Amino acid sequence: MIQIAVMGYGTIGSGVVEVLEINRDSIARRAGEEIAVKYVLDLRDFPDDPIQKKIVHDYQEIVKDPQVRIVVETMGGVEPAYTFVRAMLQAGKHVTTSNKALVAEKGAELIALAREKNVNFMFEASVGGGIPIIRSLNSCLTADEVEEITGIVNGTTNYMLTRMSEEGMEFGDVLREAQAKGYAEKDPTADVKGYDACRKIAILTSLVCRQQVDFEDIHTEGITNISAVDIRYAKAMGRRIKLLAASRKVEDGYVALVAPCMLDASHPLYNVNDVFNAIFVHGNVLGDAMFYGSGAGKLPTASAVVADVVEMAKHLDVNIAVDWSLGKLELVDHRRLRSRFFVRTAADRDAVGQAFGTVEFVTVEGITDECGFLTQEMSGTEYEERAEKLGGILQMIRVQ
Amino acid sequence: MIQIAVMGYGTIGSGVVEVLEINRDSIARRAGEEIAVKYVLDLRDFPDDPIQKKIVHDYQEIVKDPQVRIVVETMGGVEPAYTFVRAMLQAGKHVTTSNKALVAEKGAELIALAREKNVNFMFEASVGGGIPIIRSLNSCLTADEVEEITGIVNGTTNYMLTRMSEEGMEFGDVLREAQAKGYAEKDPTADVKGYDACRKIAILTSLVCRQQVDFEDIHTEGITNISAVDIRYAKAMGRRIKLLAASRKVEDGYVALVAPCMLDASHPLYNVNDVFNAIFVHGNVLGDAMFYGSGAGKLPTASAVVADVVEMAKHLDVNIAVDWSLGKLELVDHRRLRSRFFVRTAADRDAVGQAFGTVEFVTVEGITDECGFLTQEMSGTEYEERAEKLGGILQMIRVQ
Repeated sequence: MIQIAVMGYGTIGSGVVEVLEINRDSIARRAGEEIAVKYVLDLRDFPDDPIQKKIVHDYQEIVKDPQVRIVVETMGGVEPAYTFVRAMLQAGKHVTTSNKALVAEKGAELIALAREKNVNFMFEASVGGGIPIIRSLNSCLTADEVEEITGIVNGTTNYMLTRMSEEGMEFGDVLREAQAKGYAEKDPTADVKGYDACRKIAILTSLVCRQQVDFEDIHTEGITNISAVDIRYAKAMGRRIKLLAASRKVEDGYVALVAPCMLDASHPLYNVNDVFNAIFVHGNVLGDAMFYGSGAGKLPTASAVVADVVEMAKHLDVNIAVDWSLGKLELVDHRRLRSRFFVRTAADRDAVGQAFGTVEFVTVEGITDECGFLTQEMSGTEYEERAEKLGGILQMIRVQ
Repeated sequence: MIQIAVMGYGTIGSGVVEVLEINRDSIARRAGEEIAVKYVLDLRDFPDDPIQKKIVHDYQEIVKDPQVRIVVETMGGVEPAYTFVRAMLQAGKHVTTSNKALVAEKGAELIALAREKNVNFMFEASVGGGIPIIRSLNSCLTADEVEEITGIVNGTTNYMLTRMSEEGMEFGDVLREAQAKGYAEKDPTADVKGYDACRKIAILTSLVCRQQVDFEDIHTEGITNISAVDIRYAKAMGRRIKLLAASRKVEDGYVALVAPCMLDASHPLYNVNDVFNAIFVHGNVLGDAMFYGSGAGKLPTASAVVADVVEMAKHLDVNIAVDWSLGKLELVDHRRLRSRFFVRTAADRDAVGQAFGTVEFVTVEGITDECGFLTQEMSGTEYEERAEKLGGILQMIRVQ
């Protein structure tokens, strides 16, 4: 029997305990031994929950118990998770986490520490919830150079954009609805401003380029300025607006970007709706691939955490190499990326033509006091120059 | 340096050699050592190809060379691939294959032999080409009980159905076009009759239920009787016809089936077009997930083979457990599956009502000499009874 500890008995932590119970037998068969939860670390007590008898309030109790070989961290946030996880690795325990903030900031360091201690630090659940994208990048797509990763990695904003698209609702209304349904938090900043997606693409990009990508370096736009009018333009073009977190290999490095983007119906991510997540990957020999699933939620995320527990149980004395070094990667300026741009401006068509040359004008019934158009493909830098020349810009959304 | 041999220098085999060349450095880094092709086994000679100096005609040369630790089998067909692969495993060499016929028929036996010899037998490329579905089932979704797998796993038929849907073409015309483009073979039987998809779902089902599922036991319908008229009905309902290979856990076992199916726009597989493949998986805790990519083609398939080579290079002295025993699983009768059915009949609406009760009639402009309708959900057995009562059945397609 392998004893484990769970740090943080919130949504994901309690989901981990539940999944270990629901699929006890098949998990034991795959892990080679039964997995038993010995401790649950939480500040709170749960007097009406059978878990109470496993609750501890001091992480040192877990650190000091040599019976605990594997620790699950589902507390969220960088501190005190970082201190606790470090201590567990130092004590020779394997750790898996669902905590994207911790992984984005301290991933490389914790991977190095795990290697030093001949244990594993895993984080499948930190990106894409139940979608096995981390293990796919580390263990499956090993014959490829990954040249592009583009993901819908935030369920809250994807739900909101889907509702705005289906119902013609405004951002504020759909946010209130999402909060009422529990799909958005009371303080939705991290989701709607793109900060959550930013940390996730930082993790994925670090794994692809095998160096530390600091999330602060990634140009990040959220969906707060996406309006019902934008959605109407998108529909008129047969497109959908999605919040994409993307990174791309360019000649001299990598570009990363989080921004709303217009996709046409032929793009594999076009049909990823509601709270679902999906990650599109282009490999230099594999070509296009996509991984789709529940990007959040108690059980799907816990499923990914427990899959890490099984993997670690099978490798109790083996460090599985993860290629993510502490050396920092300087990203290439995102304005180097070439795309088409959808623009709304208060300027007239003549002015648009003078600034942008040949464009494709888009008309939407009932919208007459502005001018919407699609540019030719150009770099972000070129777009900015031309937009400044034009003036009166009301909105710009990249097109893929 | 790790020496390998490639058996079969056809499309996939030469793709493997090419991928090892294209991504030599990154593959070496991930494998821990450089991978070098020492032999290529083929009956033919390739006098104008630099590969000629590695060509051998007798597999025993490879068997007898202890320097060769890993062997790639890309010959196709059960024999002589089976004899060769067995000999390689017996000699303590790891083997990866892209050969679905071999894996479907002899997978359990070769896995057992590999375990006995403490080497690995891997077959990522045998299903879904470059899509890492085998490794996902074996190593990623380990916290779940997989309750359903539904795949578009044959690129040829998916291309044909896409073209029929887009262009209103008839089966025969689109087959000729697919053959001209190299998407269908001169003898297209294995693809269009569903035999290829059948072997693939046999492999996936075996991995899920951990027992041997004989492909001969799987009820298999191809797409040869799908007509332009069927496509017009599907369109009238906002649906698409896809050849699905599916297996589902039921109360007392597993059901497996290969058949054309009508999907509506909300199904994750609805938008999988052209030669792309995708595999939808439902896990009891994960919920819905989907894996999408190039299901065939030289480099994508070779990418999956080489990923196996990397995995084996990292586990030269370790057998990675694969849970697929020799014990045969008796499948549950596919007629137990419940679904709605789309039916075309020469009978009139009154007769339809008498046989099937409440149905949804479907009308297509210009089609007046027959009656198309959607049944309520029922079992396949119930459908058959009612269809016999009705008579004059022109077509039946399951609906998901």
